[in-house]
Amino acid sequence: MAQKPSIPKGTRDFNPEQVAKRNYIFNTIRGAFETFGFLPIETPSFENSDTLMGKYGEEGDRLIFKILNSGDYLSKANNEAYDTKNSNKLTSSISEKALRYDLTVPFARYVVQHQNEIELPFKRYQIQPVWRADRPQKGRFREFYQCDADVVGSKSLWQEVEFIQLYDNVFSALKLEGVIIKINNRKILSGIAEVIGASDKLIDFTVALDKLDKIGEEKVKAEMLSKGISEEGIAKLQPLFTLSGSFESQIDSLKSILGTSEEGKKGIEELAFIDTAISELGLSTATLQLDVTLARGLNYYTGAIFEVSTPKNVKMGSIGGGGRYDDLTGIFGMKNVSGVGISFGLDRIYLVLDELDLFPEAVNKNVEVLFINFGDKEALFSLKAINELRLQGIKSELYPDAAKMKKQMNHANKRAIPFVVLVGEEEVSSNTYTLKNMNSGEQHKVPLDALINLVK
Amino acid sequence: MAQKPSIPKGTRDFNPEQVAKRNYIFNTIRGAFETFGFLPIETPSFENSDTLMGKYGEEGDRLIFKILNSGDYLSKANNEAYDTKNSNKLTSSISEKALRYDLTVPFARYVVQHQNEIELPFKRYQIQPVWRADRPQKGRFREFYQCDADVVGSKSLWQEVEFIQLYDNVFSALKLEGVIIKINNRKILSGIAEVIGASDKLIDFTVALDKLDKIGEEKVKAEMLSKGISEEGIAKLQPLFTLSGSFESQIDSLKSILGTSEEGKKGIEELAFIDTAISELGLSTATLQLDVTLARGLNYYTGAIFEVSTPKNVKMGSIGGGGRYDDLTGIFGMKNVSGVGISFGLDRIYLVLDELDLFPEAVNKNVEVLFINFGDKEALFSLKAINELRLQGIKSELYPDAAKMKKQMNHANKRAIPFVVLVGEEEVSSNTYTLKNMNSGEQHKVPLDALINLVK
Repeated sequence: MAQKPSIPKGTRDFNPEQVAKRNYIFNTIRGAFETFGFLPIETPSFENSDTLMGKYGEEGDRLIFKILNSGDYLSKANNEAYDTKNSNKLTSSISEKALRYDLTVPFARYVVQHQNEIELPFKRYQIQPVWRADRPQKGRFREFYQCDADVVGSKSLWQEVEFIQLYDNVFSALKLEGVIIKINNRKILSGIAEVIGASDKLIDFTVALDKLDKIGEEKVKAEMLSKGISEEGIAKLQPLFTLSGSFESQIDSLKSILGTSEEGKKGIEELAFIDTAISELGLSTATLQLDVTLARGLNYYTGAIFEVSTPKNVKMGSIGGGGRYDDLTGIFGMKNVSGVGISFGLDRIYLVLDELDLFPEAVNKNVEVLFINFGDKEALFSLKAINELRLQGIKSELYPDAAKMKKQMNHANKRAIPFVVLVGEEEVSSNTYTLKNMNSGEQHKVPLDALINLVK
Repeated sequence: MAQKPSIPKGTRDFNPEQVAKRNYIFNTIRGAFETFGFLPIETPSFENSDTLMGKYGEEGDRLIFKILNSGDYLSKANNEAYDTKNSNKLTSSISEKALRYDLTVPFARYVVQHQNEIELPFKRYQIQPVWRADRPQKGRFREFYQCDADVVGSKSLWQEVEFIQLYDNVFSALKLEGVIIKINNRKILSGIAEVIGASDKLIDFTVALDKLDKIGEEKVKAEMLSKGISEEGIAKLQPLFTLSGSFESQIDSLKSILGTSEEGKKGIEELAFIDTAISELGLSTATLQLDVTLARGLNYYTGAIFEVSTPKNVKMGSIGGGGRYDDLTGIFGMKNVSGVGISFGLDRIYLVLDELDLFPEAVNKNVEVLFINFGDKEALFSLKAINELRLQGIKSELYPDAAKMKKQMNHANKRAIPFVVLVGEEEVSSNTYTLKNMNSGEQHKVPLDALINLVK
């Protein structure tokens, strides 16, 4: 029954070094979340299909992994769909559960389901994998972790201020200095659309504007034109394409463009509030930048929109994002609960830290001491010492077999274990240990307490 | 589109307190695994169906969650199965992936797939969820975590000795004192079956014997008889049913029963080796006990069999188990790689610690300080102090809205936050903070450094 084993495309095995590095990032983010007062929750890997379907648009529905019902699932198959062999129609009758697609919808479901146990405003964080049947490509996987922090139950802009501080805190702790926290506001985008007479084409307008960095001014204009936005309207946008300078000077330009839009003015006010607070409070290593082209292609943001870019010397795209959505839980029948949140992109952060060599050396959880096995009597003597080392928190182990010395030393070398202990007959009778430093080659014959000190 | 939200049966949401308690157990186990030299790996949540199907018996195959292929999955449906509406036959043609059922088979797959990167013996641990379409009941879930440590690539019995120490280490660290580590050996069971002339009925024999605790001697004998084991053979078993006393005295009895079986004698030798080593090394709070009825209903163990029971004052069944399997990777074409491993039952350990009130108080990750919000000017002043508190690792936050004082104080009370800070106009102008201890009601107006000291 031999098979050549492999794993599904878009999924990954993680070896010990990768797990340790990923946990370093998770732990840093988790620590910051908790210091900022966020509390952890966890939700099931699969939800009832009803909970997920229809929440991410048509494309999202397609990308959700569905779980086949157990047992004789065809006995409940939709007859019409079955007879016409219509996969799309058949699915809901043979599959009741689906894998989590993001952490936001399950969170909204959690808040509504547990509303009587929750004290609003509720600050939660959640670090769990999600699954998407996307076409795998470099940096895009079918199973990946999301790290989300959200607050529900308050419209206060102080929360936007805190999320900017939180980004700054996490990336500073990761020693990834110089990240750019871009901010925009959906109300600015609505205001602009209003001013150019394209309020009914807000989505087309923002989708086009969002591409400015990638395809440039001319192509953005052409796309807008093709979507039915008037030449006259597009001409009014001209100041946007050249908007630059400090946060404050951009705000001033926006005021002159958006003077006739109430919604636009509200957006400017919100941005100015956040900018003033952050200027007063200061950031450690990050920079806050206004970017009016930022739309994140997402339709559910209603206020602030965030996106984090890597420092200029690294090309990686966004390593985090988020925003304000005024009716998070409405999809589950609980109205008027505003939410705001941010997310960290683990996989990209990992790649950036690796590229810039920013993982601390101590992240490696390697074994520190290997005891060479010369036979049962010596092994037993060694295990007594190993007990002591472990009590002191020193990662140590016995080579399990009394194999040839050379083989055991090779094993230590290949695993880059820094210390080896040799216990032969002589050591047992004199109650000592020969400690070898595998880097320097130095050897010392010492009692147990000295051994522990030397390793420490 | 209002729906009453719920989650699939057999799955769970975890609230902040539950997550914190679960992480306390995970972290304790992880710490012990690493001190003992085990390295972490992670594998994908779903595997190719080929990897899992046929590895857990017929019942296992039924209980594996299958993932529906994406897109027009019916276009590749097996025609015969489709025409006859045969669910069982159709599955493999519309589903290529399945959710992880345990951590052992994915580990075997990992070892074979990555054999060129791995240095044997390889000590790995893995803490990840698994999924089973079992009928949910009290304490049995469709999604639950397994915590496994295994070594592959050596037959040394020192590994069995280390796993017993590892169990002792973890449960001592969890303050769950007095657990009983039961041990048996498949070779003992084979030897007994041989001696009573039932070698060809080893599985039936062990399955029946395994039930001794639950259904008693008479019913076990009846079951064996019904499975075709002779009366004469069963009579020879009599000493087994009354086997008691110390490990050593049980070993002596077994020697007299198993004198004619080579395999039985080998099993006795292995048990005696382990017992002697553990007696020499000592255990902190656990007890090692020989239990010849222990079979764990599993067919793949070839040597040692482990099971951990709670202390006598708690009724919970097994909270851990494991054993030796001589051909772990054979299913994937890599022969003669012996493995031995143990597992911890997170959910049951959680219930036991809860029942015995053994979770440390500090496990709760609650916010320590809430700053009351009296308006934007005061909020900004407060956030500067909050920055400092967070740098000191003190979990603190600002109430986001300038709501009525009473509402904010109620919020602090409901969340059991121990300290509240009041910052009004007066505090801002005198650069001080009024700190209120929510338990004692005491209030102090102090500068920032004194505030930090008082909270600490």
